[in-house]
Amino acid sequence: MSTCDTCNKNSCPATSRQADESDADYKERQKLESRLCRVQRKIVVLSGKGGVGKSTVAINIAAGLMMAGLKVGLLDVDIHGPSIPTMIGLEGRTPEGNGEELIPLEVHGLKVMSPGFFLRSQDDAIIWRGPMKANAIRQFLQDVAWGELDYLVVDSPPGTGDEPLSVCQLIKKLDGAVIVTTPQKVAAVDVRKSITFCRQLKVPVLGVIENMSGFACPKCGEITSILGSGGGRRMAAEMGVPFLGAIPIDPAIALACDRGQVPVQMSICSPAVENMRTIVKRLWDIGVKGKAA
Amino acid sequence: MSTCDTCNKNSCPATSRQADESDADYKERQKLESRLCRVQRKIVVLSGKGGVGKSTVAINIAAGLMMAGLKVGLLDVDIHGPSIPTMIGLEGRTPEGNGEELIPLEVHGLKVMSPGFFLRSQDDAIIWRGPMKANAIRQFLQDVAWGELDYLVVDSPPGTGDEPLSVCQLIKKLDGAVIVTTPQKVAAVDVRKSITFCRQLKVPVLGVIENMSGFACPKCGEITSILGSGGGRRMAAEMGVPFLGAIPIDPAIALACDRGQVPVQMSICSPAVENMRTIVKRLWDIGVKGKAA
Repeated sequence: MSTCDTCNKNSCPATSRQADESDADYKERQKLESRLCRVQRKIVVLSGKGGVGKSTVAINIAAGLMMAGLKVGLLDVDIHGPSIPTMIGLEGRTPEGNGEELIPLEVHGLKVMSPGFFLRSQDDAIIWRGPMKANAIRQFLQDVAWGELDYLVVDSPPGTGDEPLSVCQLIKKLDGAVIVTTPQKVAAVDVRKSITFCRQLKVPVLGVIENMSGFACPKCGEITSILGSGGGRRMAAEMGVPFLGAIPIDPAIALACDRGQVPVQMSICSPAVENMRTIVKRLWDIGVKGKAA
Repeated sequence: MSTCDTCNKNSCPATSRQADESDADYKERQKLESRLCRVQRKIVVLSGKGGVGKSTVAINIAAGLMMAGLKVGLLDVDIHGPSIPTMIGLEGRTPEGNGEELIPLEVHGLKVMSPGFFLRSQDDAIIWRGPMKANAIRQFLQDVAWGELDYLVVDSPPGTGDEPLSVCQLIKKLDGAVIVTTPQKVAAVDVRKSITFCRQLKVPVLGVIENMSGFACPKCGEITSILGSGGGRRMAAEMGVPFLGAIPIDPAIALACDRGQVPVQMSICSPAVENMRTIVKRLWDIGVKGKAA
């Protein structure tokens, strides 16, 4: 038993070798644990179904926490469809390495890492089966120079497969999951699975966000529930998890994401952006005051 | 070398053992090949990004071909978020087995199989890594009593990972892929990856569908490009693949799917449903007249 180089505590999981661990495995795990030891809070953004705006929410949470004065990292683990580079204006950029570590890219101080940075062309597809994805996610956590962070926000691909499973298993002290859905029943059905997934893996559910909740016609103001409404709030109540808020559909947000701009950082006064700011504030309160149930 | 029991041709891949194949592997492959030998055309519905309406499109293609008098099967291989049971009104139903085979469920003659039929509760999450998913997909192709079919439509989860890879590798004579996107740049970027994926695996691209293409306000008729517009058509032109059509956002479709009704079968006269019918007609023309480029 030794003391962790990072936190100087011998209670740190990086300090003791597990019974069934080989020397090489222990060294690997030690690297991972002492890296994560320097990150105060780690949250993962999940959804059961794709296209619910999970990456948009993840970027806005990360940017919102950063605007509150925190040091924040944003890790995209969507191996097959990494949207973060486009959405945050870092398309075509490649992180540099310094021998042992990869240096994350920065946008106004927000540290960002994504598998999308390593594709030769936007059209390239990463055709990988599960075990290769698990290795890549391990590297993104272990070999990236995240440094001292208050928050690491992990944007996971939808579903309950290899990527979210790897994130939840590799980050031992995950503070919790934010779960994104749309009001549709077919989305809410899938998102219930994400909550079951968190419970099975003992990851606290920080709350549910209902995205794409109604659309206000920019001409006449008529509000249409394009995908229905209230499905996320109802589902959160039924599953006994906190409801963090609803975000209406806003073409300005879709456009901002396509242009690589982050809505919460912009001076847009739309209900969608306002609600996003409120949700970030709620997460910040949870983070400061202690863990959610 | 023997003759295939199903097609009676000795050119069938089921009839000859491959050089590197064990006896057991050959028997397994023979089962799969002679099952698929009874299906005239096999198409897979893909998307790079989730939530673009891929399952809605897959159901409507299957139902549309069936309404044209064909025998059609619909296979959902979305292990983590199977939407087909809810969307086609088969929630809570379980297929029966007859010892060796699983009998697909039927809706107006459309044969349907989904991993969702085997969950004890809607909240259950299938937390599986890649190799287990590949096995499950193999079983769905091999051990399901599909019988004689004109078309098997496979609804694949988004991305370029284990599930679409298994489908494309297991179905040797795949007629092609229909690729669904939304107009957004972040969706089109991911969908380009799906086209690259098809090219690498030598699966013909039948064409691209742009879903959620504009929204008409039900009160004033104003058309808003909520997610931008034209991204799918542009991307198809750039990548040199056919464009099959655009489908506008229609709350009636979202509602029909949540209620387990299939839009093309209903007497809805909306532009969205009309365009879906036109797309099915195009696919049917491609199927009848020969393979797409």
